Amino acid sequence: MQLGMVGLGRMGGNIVRRLLRAGHHCVAFDRDPAPGAALAAEGAQAVADLPAMVAALEAPRAIWVMLPNGAPTEEALATLAGMLSPGDVLIDGGNSMWKDSVRRGAMLREKGLHFLDIGTSGGVWGLERGYALMIGGEDAVVRRLDPIFAALVPGKAAASPTPGYAGDPRAEQGYVHAGPNGAGHFTKMIHNGIEYGMMQAFAEGLDILHHADSPALPEEHRLSLNLPDITESWRRGSVVASWLLDLTAQALAQDPKLESFSGHVSDSGEGRWTVQAAVETAVSAPVLSAALFARFASRDEDRFGAKVLSAQRKGFGGHLEAPKDTTKA
Amino acid sequence: MQLGMVGLGRMGGNIVRRLLRAGHHCVAFDRDPAPGAALAAEGAQAVADLPAMVAALEAPRAIWVMLPNGAPTEEALATLAGMLSPGDVLIDGGNSMWKDSVRRGAMLREKGLHFLDIGTSGGVWGLERGYALMIGGEDAVVRRLDPIFAALVPGKAAASPTPGYAGDPRAEQGYVHAGPNGAGHFTKMIHNGIEYGMMQAFAEGLDILHHADSPALPEEHRLSLNLPDITESWRRGSVVASWLLDLTAQALAQDPKLESFSGHVSDSGEGRWTVQAAVETAVSAPVLSAALFARFASRDEDRFGAKVLSAQRKGFGGHLEAPKDTTKA
Amino acid sequence: MQLGMVGLGRMGGNIVRRLLRAGHHCVAFDRDPAPGAALAAEGAQAVADLPAMVAALEAPRAIWVMLPNGAPTEEALATLAGMLSPGDVLIDGGNSMWKDSVRRGAMLREKGLHFLDIGTSGGVWGLERGYALMIGGEDAVVRRLDPIFAALVPGKAAASPTPGYAGDPRAEQGYVHAGPNGAGHFTKMIHNGIEYGMMQAFAEGLDILHHADSPALPEEHRLSLNLPDITESWRRGSVVASWLLDLTAQALAQDPKLESFSGHVSDSGEGRWTVQAAVETAVSAPVLSAALFARFASRDEDRFGAKVLSAQRKGFGGHLEAPKDTTKA
Amino acid sequence: MQLGMVGLGRMGGNIVRRLLRAGHHCVAFDRDPAPGAALAAEGAQAVADLPAMVAALEAPRAIWVMLPNGAPTEEALATLAGMLSPGDVLIDGGNSMWKDSVRRGAMLREKGLHFLDIGTSGGVWGLERGYALMIGGEDAVVRRLDPIFAALVPGKAAASPTPGYAGDPRAEQGYVHAGPNGAGHFTKMIHNGIEYGMMQAFAEGLDILHHADSPALPEEHRLSLNLPDITESWRRGSVVASWLLDLTAQALAQDPKLESFSGHVSDSGEGRWTVQAAVETAVSAPVLSAALFARFASRDEDRFGAKVLSAQRKGFGGHLEAPKDTTKA
Repeated sequence: MQLGMVGLGRMGGNIVRRLLRAGHHCVAFDRDPAPGAALAAEGAQAVADLPAMVAALEAPRAIWVMLPNGAPTEEALATLAGMLSPGDVLIDGGNSMWKDSVRRGAMLREKGLHFLDIGTSGGVWGLERGYALMIGGEDAVVRRLDPIFAALVPGKAAASPTPGYAGDPRAEQGYVHAGPNGAGHFTKMIHNGIEYGMMQAFAEGLDILHHADSPALPEEHRLSLNLPDITESWRRGSVVASWLLDLTAQALAQDPKLESFSGHVSDSGEGRWTVQAAVETAVSAPVLSAALFARFASRDEDRFGAKVLSAQRKGFGGHLEAPKDTTKA
Repeated sequence: MQLGMVGLGRMGGNIVRRLLRAGHHCVAFDRDPAPGAALAAEGAQAVADLPAMVAALEAPRAIWVMLPNGAPTEEALATLAGMLSPGDVLIDGGNSMWKDSVRRGAMLREKGLHFLDIGTSGGVWGLERGYALMIGGEDAVVRRLDPIFAALVPGKAAASPTPGYAGDPRAEQGYVHAGPNGAGHFTKMIHNGIEYGMMQAFAEGLDILHHADSPALPEEHRLSLNLPDITESWRRGSVVASWLLDLTAQALAQDPKLESFSGHVSDSGEGRWTVQAAVETAVSAPVLSAALFARFASRDEDRFGAKVLSAQRKGFGGHLEAPKDTTKA
Repeated sequence: MQLGMVGLGRMGGNIVRRLLRAGHHCVAFDRDPAPGAALAAEGAQAVADLPAMVAALEAPRAIWVMLPNGAPTEEALATLAGMLSPGDVLIDGGNSMWKDSVRRGAMLREKGLHFLDIGTSGGVWGLERGYALMIGGEDAVVRRLDPIFAALVPGKAAASPTPGYAGDPRAEQGYVHAGPNGAGHFTKMIHNGIEYGMMQAFAEGLDILHHADSPALPEEHRLSLNLPDITESWRRGSVVASWLLDLTAQALAQDPKLESFSGHVSDSGEGRWTVQAAVETAVSAPVLSAALFARFASRDEDRFGAKVLSAQRKGFGGHLEAPKDTTKA
Repeated sequence: MQLGMVGLGRMGGNIVRRLLRAGHHCVAFDRDPAPGAALAAEGAQAVADLPAMVAALEAPRAIWVMLPNGAPTEEALATLAGMLSPGDVLIDGGNSMWKDSVRRGAMLREKGLHFLDIGTSGGVWGLERGYALMIGGEDAVVRRLDPIFAALVPGKAAASPTPGYAGDPRAEQGYVHAGPNGAGHFTKMIHNGIEYGMMQAFAEGLDILHHADSPALPEEHRLSLNLPDITESWRRGSVVASWLLDLTAQALAQDPKLESFSGHVSDSGEGRWTVQAAVETAVSAPVLSAALFARFASRDEDRFGAKVLSAQRKGFGGHLEAPKDTTKA
């Protein structure tokens, strides 16, 4: 099947690769010609600009945009919308805000175009493991592109069957048609929100293990623990067994004290939007928000909030905070 | 190898079964004679009381106590300590507080006995999948009982190798000798603390998905999402893939609205002790504590804290809270 | 000075009253004629509709809209904007979203009108104590209406002077010109966000005091505490002395177990918008979000998130949650 | 009335001063002779050691120990217990753990001595404003020492009467007999836990105000806000009016960007014990714990937990965290 791919970064490039390996025909474009050339050597048809991509595809076309969210995605979709013909499909596989996908779907429908918003999980491992896809859009369009999705997902054998599952068989392959436009990115947003919470749960638990030899503890309670061994052992049979644990064990195996990391943690939009969605739907989400705030705090060189606390403490108690407190060993 | 097992509930009984299947000789005791009789039919030697168990085992003996934490475990260990001979090993495989294990290890050492505190993860699935074991105690004793542990854990094949792992090969089998007495239960405590955080991350994310059709959202943003399909699809290739997700997908496959559950969630000691350990070591653990507090709140029929809020709102704003607010659909 | 007031509820009506007492001339309107009639008896000029209000005021007019946020405020401002003359001032004294105030200010400026967004704190006590005002808008306009504001605020004597304060003397009267349009409601939003956090701090602390006799504690540690006495005593000399404490002590004095309250706590927009502002500016706000989420949870009859936890616990441990757990006494 | 004071630091010294001003007779001791000499110049009787103090007081004696909690308090109480006579009263006015006060009360009762645990709030302002006292112990002993307490507290005039209050009139003076031994320090612990929550609520709200000009916001939404003016204005008529706000406004008046503070915030035992008490009584306390954890995080130079997040992000997404992220302006 034919697919155009706009944006050949880590995600877009590997999606093309996985499709090529499955025998699909990919027309590939990136502002930077290098990744297109590399993919051409693997069988893709690299093009020099968007008009060339449109010309290279037969109607009804399907073009997957895999760009940073915000302006780059907005512009690419708008530009392509002006070049395509009724019946063509535009796909946003990036990490767009779900409300943008609702809006874009409506806008494209007015032009007779179809739109799919696809949340794509898998990261750098997707090429080998396959991608989990969460799709929003019209049912007929999702079914039309089924060969593409079937090639991208990990496939049914990637996990043991769920006893009692009688739902959509595509979910057992690794992808879900979550609903109309917006549903794909909404589902991906929540996926990432959960991911933030799980990551922070590991971060806090391992932080306590790391401090189990704290001089704040009575001497007979201090423990010096081997985190690489512990996390490796949890990978089998434990309740916390997970892909994130696999990655954590791997990182600790290679750098037991994680000294190669700064501890300034970035966040992408989904963690923020998840908290906003919780607020908008009045759902209590203390863990998902705490996970987001821990990232904010990890980057807060300014410490203004903490300075307010210090100022209050000085105000009522005459305490002057030391430049560096050493309570935590 | 010989092992005595005291306490033949869900965990103790299945540990005996898994050992029997591996060819070990198990002497089994429970206050209730029924589970011992059942295990006798599967090859165990059921005994009628603790003296009979001690008599049935050759020195140096190893007796595994698998009882509820607190008084039952304390009493069983004390009673057995009075019957055993120097060189014998007492194992506490339950969910004891790690400081108790430090204390008990010291107490038993004074009598010439050995003590192992073993955190055991695996639940009702351990019989088939194997158990993850986190062990505290003397190295020689842990090595002496290696055939027992090797039979209980899932084994190396249960997960793909971790690239770069060069630690204790036992961890790749599924068990870790975490350190001296206390280290086993400390590690298990943190494991469960992380488990609480991961569970709550899923709970909150799925709660938002469940409310994605909230009338609080503008009509064009409301989404009706199929949670069984979504969670099933995440099991393959996604970042949140985990055993907890497998179980969640299974529960939703069988009861899509989870109507068979009350939503009053119990907690065991480890979640609480994890928060206390964070406090004692000055580690910030907002996610692990939020996960614990969400369980407390789920059972809070009294709502006194919330009533304070209502009283304050009435005080400054004249607001009278409705008996049931319907903002959250 | 002349002022028109649209919306004569608890807040609008008392603002008129306080202005009348200070000798100002108020033209008052409400869809419901009753409150206008009541205010007319106290010296206001009640009018039957908005055109009558506009006719009753001399240019440059100042009209204060005090309506529920969202559609009612939007419509009243739009309608009045169509009736007013260049140089007139429209005031939104309600709890509008600050971004709406930015937008409305720009829209009204295009028509030659002035706009002030005023966050108003004080609730049912404002008539007697005065109102704290947080104002966004053009400096000249704020200064023109100074007599109005000066009459509404508590005045300098309401608190002892702050040593070293050398800022805007109006702040010492109880009002602040926070910045351009939006700044008034932004500041009020944060004020209310802080209020949520303070309220929840009291709620949690008193909840622990309330449970100090919990059977979960060893008998020698159980305490039966008198909350009305404790909160009354804190009102003098303690670090938590505050108006919220005064109100809490009063509520407890009148209903020591707060049995007249349901514990289903509503929330208004500001608490939600505060969390969203934290997310947008990457500020860690765990307390302000936890305070909001505690209110959401207090109304969550559905408990879907908690049911997910129960389902997972059953999945891995065979635990079946009791319909009602009694751990918390 | 006579009182012995052991420990003449900021708190103990000023308590003596306030008692002297009220005409009481104080016998004062500190390891360091300087503060005793200073107090002698103000009318106290300084003594050189504890035996001299015991000799200087008439039976039944009352000796107030005002020392750092933990070993110093434990040792002073034990030493004095060996010197006193039946009927004498020992007072611990420091910030001891409430369970220690339960234990010490029982231990002293066995010797025929009386014990009072008194939580003392007021900090450096107590000398002028008076101290809020939370007292645990026997009723007759509390009543016997009433002249001392009456001299220390702010007195009824320090706050307006609470409508409907019909409880213990001593609470209206500013002190509460909270219950038996332990109740004083338990109540003070919760007081401080609430204090932590209130402080953090202000810290977060002001942090958002501080970042209202963040480049992360669209240009038309950026606000440059004057925090000294805003906090000053809130002191009158607003819902967040409080002593902590007074102190905050004062700090901002003197140092608008709080540049004299490091933002490494210490914590004393009460915040930690409050979280532990919440855990022990199964009360959900997300705000009180988040406030504590924010302090821990403010001092966490190690960032191990955050490094775990970075390592996971690199693992699944190939993200390499920059040494310093600049998302937060």
